[in-house]
Amino acid sequence: MLKKFTVKSTRRSEFIDITPSVEETIRASGVRNGIAVIHVFHTSAAITINENADPDVATDLEGFMAKLIPHESDFRHAEGNSDAHVKSSLFGPSITLIVEDGAPALGTWQAVYLVDWDGPRTRQYAVKVLAD
Amino acid sequence: MLKKFTVKSTRRSEFIDITPSVEETIRASGVRNGIAVIHVFHTSAAITINENADPDVATDLEGFMAKLIPHESDFRHAEGNSDAHVKSSLFGPSITLIVEDGAPALGTWQAVYLVDWDGPRTRQYAVKVLAD
Amino acid sequence: MLKKFTVKSTRRSEFIDITPSVEETIRASGVRNGIAVIHVFHTSAAITINENADPDVATDLEGFMAKLIPHESDFRHAEGNSDAHVKSSLFGPSITLIVEDGAPALGTWQAVYLVDWDGPRTRQYAVKVLAD
Repeated sequence: MLKKFTVKSTRRSEFIDITPSVEETIRASGVRNGIAVIHVFHTSAAITINENADPDVATDLEGFMAKLIPHESDFRHAEGNSDAHVKSSLFGPSITLIVEDGAPALGTWQAVYLVDWDGPRTRQYAVKVLAD
Repeated sequence: MLKKFTVKSTRRSEFIDITPSVEETIRASGVRNGIAVIHVFHTSAAITINENADPDVATDLEGFMAKLIPHESDFRHAEGNSDAHVKSSLFGPSITLIVEDGAPALGTWQAVYLVDWDGPRTRQYAVKVLAD
Repeated sequence: MLKKFTVKSTRRSEFIDITPSVEETIRASGVRNGIAVIHVFHTSAAITINENADPDVATDLEGFMAKLIPHESDFRHAEGNSDAHVKSSLFGPSITLIVEDGAPALGTWQAVYLVDWDGPRTRQYAVKVLAD
């Protein structure tokens, strides 16, 4: 099963929790055991896993990455978003999860995030489920 | 086949070679050709591949990452381990390997590491094997 | 289906577009829907996805990563390429793609790159295709 989703970010750098859409796609697929691949179709956005309990964690991640890779670095690319391209390769465009008993095998504090590094924009991603 | 493992780190930042557990899970699965997904169930630890020949490589990686993302940065998250959350998203929580002839397809110097960025702790990870 | 490829880099740090080899392997496999895993067999090279339209993006990525993780940092590893090992774990050794209708599901601007962080060298990678 392959499902495609659209989300809208509201600011330049934003972590959007997409775990519910992953869980729902796995449920709809009927797959009990296998894997799920989540892929974002952009080069200035990423898919990552991080903590969902304390919203300060995502705020810290956004803040630290902005200092580490400043928006206004000495870049050539005319669109002025090369920092977003760097961050996207560092976090990666996809995550592969294990599916166990019809749900993603995640730790207690793990959530799946689409990270927009160059919002606000409309972003598309896909969830693919493969059975054993 | 899905197998879960527990490892204990002995210091704050530590690379633990988990390649033998990956090889053993593939062997036990009987799968000759397919893929294996290794996933860590924490948001302050990661799974990566790097060199296993010279232990200085892991030491260099730990040391450089500590300088790049200092423990005592200007973070909000009250637990004081936001640097570990950043490093975990940068390295990633999982790796997908190719399985060939009943073994992980790795280069001569490649080993699979669980990296604890916020030890010493007890950490859990899983290895999932899928046949072609 | 599993296919192995060799590429040669021509300078220390280089992004090599390997998307055609991924597309060709999927076509040759006859798989219409599933996934593809691309894995590089070295610890000083990586697989990533980034923009293919403007060559300045790859130039910016190489340039920024060289500043972020300098070649001549205070490293122990005697080969003098620890910066390449750090960059390789940050970008990651593999990418898993969704296969849809016999082709990799990629966004308009997404290309798959083998990144050599310690060239010029001959590098090997594999593309594995799994059907649903």
